[in-house]
Amino acid sequence: MAPRKGNLMTVRTDVKVLDATIRDGGLCNNFEFTDEFVTELYKTNVKSGVDYMEFGYRASKNLFDPKDFGKWKFCSEEDIRSIVGENVSDMKIAVMADVGRCDFKEDFIPKSESVIDMVRVACYIHQIPAAIEMIEHFHNLGYETTCNIMAISQANTEQIDAALEMLGAQSHVDVIYLVDSYGSLYPESAANLSKKYLEIGEKYGKAIGFHAHNNQNLAFANTIETLSYGVSYLDATASGMGRGSGNCAMELLLGFLKNPKYSLYSLLTFIEKYIVPLRESGVVWGYDIQYMLTGQLNRHPREAMAFTAEKRQDYCEFYKSLLDNF
Amino acid sequence: MAPRKGNLMTVRTDVKVLDATIRDGGLCNNFEFTDEFVTELYKTNVKSGVDYMEFGYRASKNLFDPKDFGKWKFCSEEDIRSIVGENVSDMKIAVMADVGRCDFKEDFIPKSESVIDMVRVACYIHQIPAAIEMIEHFHNLGYETTCNIMAISQANTEQIDAALEMLGAQSHVDVIYLVDSYGSLYPESAANLSKKYLEIGEKYGKAIGFHAHNNQNLAFANTIETLSYGVSYLDATASGMGRGSGNCAMELLLGFLKNPKYSLYSLLTFIEKYIVPLRESGVVWGYDIQYMLTGQLNRHPREAMAFTAEKRQDYCEFYKSLLDNF
Repeated sequence: MAPRKGNLMTVRTDVKVLDATIRDGGLCNNFEFTDEFVTELYKTNVKSGVDYMEFGYRASKNLFDPKDFGKWKFCSEEDIRSIVGENVSDMKIAVMADVGRCDFKEDFIPKSESVIDMVRVACYIHQIPAAIEMIEHFHNLGYETTCNIMAISQANTEQIDAALEMLGAQSHVDVIYLVDSYGSLYPESAANLSKKYLEIGEKYGKAIGFHAHNNQNLAFANTIETLSYGVSYLDATASGMGRGSGNCAMELLLGFLKNPKYSLYSLLTFIEKYIVPLRESGVVWGYDIQYMLTGQLNRHPREAMAFTAEKRQDYCEFYKSLLDNF
Repeated sequence: MAPRKGNLMTVRTDVKVLDATIRDGGLCNNFEFTDEFVTELYKTNVKSGVDYMEFGYRASKNLFDPKDFGKWKFCSEEDIRSIVGENVSDMKIAVMADVGRCDFKEDFIPKSESVIDMVRVACYIHQIPAAIEMIEHFHNLGYETTCNIMAISQANTEQIDAALEMLGAQSHVDVIYLVDSYGSLYPESAANLSKKYLEIGEKYGKAIGFHAHNNQNLAFANTIETLSYGVSYLDATASGMGRGSGNCAMELLLGFLKNPKYSLYSLLTFIEKYIVPLRESGVVWGYDIQYMLTGQLNRHPREAMAFTAEKRQDYCEFYKSLLDNF
């Protein structure tokens, strides 16, 4: 194992914290946040020292009908500007573009005219060539780019090695993300995988990021474990809001980081004013046994999400049904 | 850092899982479990392959009035036998005895006449001599013994080194426990501390245990991280039931361990039949922001427990009050 970078007392100035509340959290409420919620989250992130705020997806309006989703599924320039104005702050703005679900050639203007700073390209491991095409397009438009390779726990070592080498050698991507979509990684396995990413990062001058899911209550643990070996782009969301079991909680991460630029006060106020009522209104996310079981089995959480939606609590029957359909 | 022991695929036959639901969970409901709950948990633990079940404290009836507590605060032989009979199973029975809160010379019969197998002696680091006196007494009566040194995150390195050396050289204790009472350890710091314990354990032939609290949602992560370096006695509770933010959840731990003797089925059934209704009846435990804050600040959770009891959600004011009273 490579040595750890820094220690539990010191500041790592290479660390960048990205708030993905609207994007991953939008998967819990169909992106139907109030403007007040998004505006206050934006102000909170600026005050808390967050480095990037992801507003949502820029999804294809040919594939997805805007009538069926909140506006953060599409993240138009106008909608972002209605919240951030010219974004006079030290925080950068990101959106996500999924391979195969985005009209990337039509729907992005040059960075010089856009309020967006970074485009995060999400793909599965067999879509790396398509991801590279998109990354190069966004890079040529002037954006910072990331490649978020999802569901990495189901890829094999040869695939991962090939994907990382392609991204390193054949793309201008700035950040390569390790994404634990199924929440099945343990700190030890997340650290081992991150080491592989970090080697490619060092070879080709790319930063490495980590995006966690909390199926086994390990989102924060895996985030700080990969951080300790050199991962520097860290995704988190307010109170872990995100699909299924959710993500790494921003309050845990900001409380851990030693850089005095990060502050908890504003976030705690945001949580009591906006997250608590959102939960009380019936929006559901977070660790629960059904997500633990899909995480332990390294599976997509879709069955657990259905179990949650049906308000079932017959965990043993659910477990047996998962094992029957392995 | 010492090498890890075993890996994520293999069985470690030295591992012993201890269920502390009645003991640490009893701190959430004044030890007032129904006999049905305790009986079903006992049966569940036997079926799940759990190695030890801790029934509660054997507290002094001179210091604590039995009228004020459920019976598992005192764990009489008769009360344990009413649940387990002669305990015809592979699982052993443990109770906890606190230094200074236990009439240990009067209240324990010889092991040969007792249904109890192990006595766990809990102390703070300045009470090691008193703990050793108790350990030797219990050892001479024929019991297995542990020493659970609490609040270790507030002890300094010299104290820890001296305490471990005393326990190793001057006692017959079988297991020395690293106890993260305030939930303030990170996987990296828990691993570093466990290495120190493991060195003493190797020198004097003692096993090492870990008892986690979930203030920063790291109870499970810290448990498996210390496990990976050689810690072998692992405390957990059903759904993490325990004081404040609770403990390592048994279902996470059993799902992680690879030894086929451990099984999740019975535990999942127990959770849906007994833990879900217990929570619905108003017994409260588990990760929440107030516990995160005391964990981040390495403090006793008493203020967070009061905040919880008052059903407050003004996290920012609470945080400021903690910082004002540092």
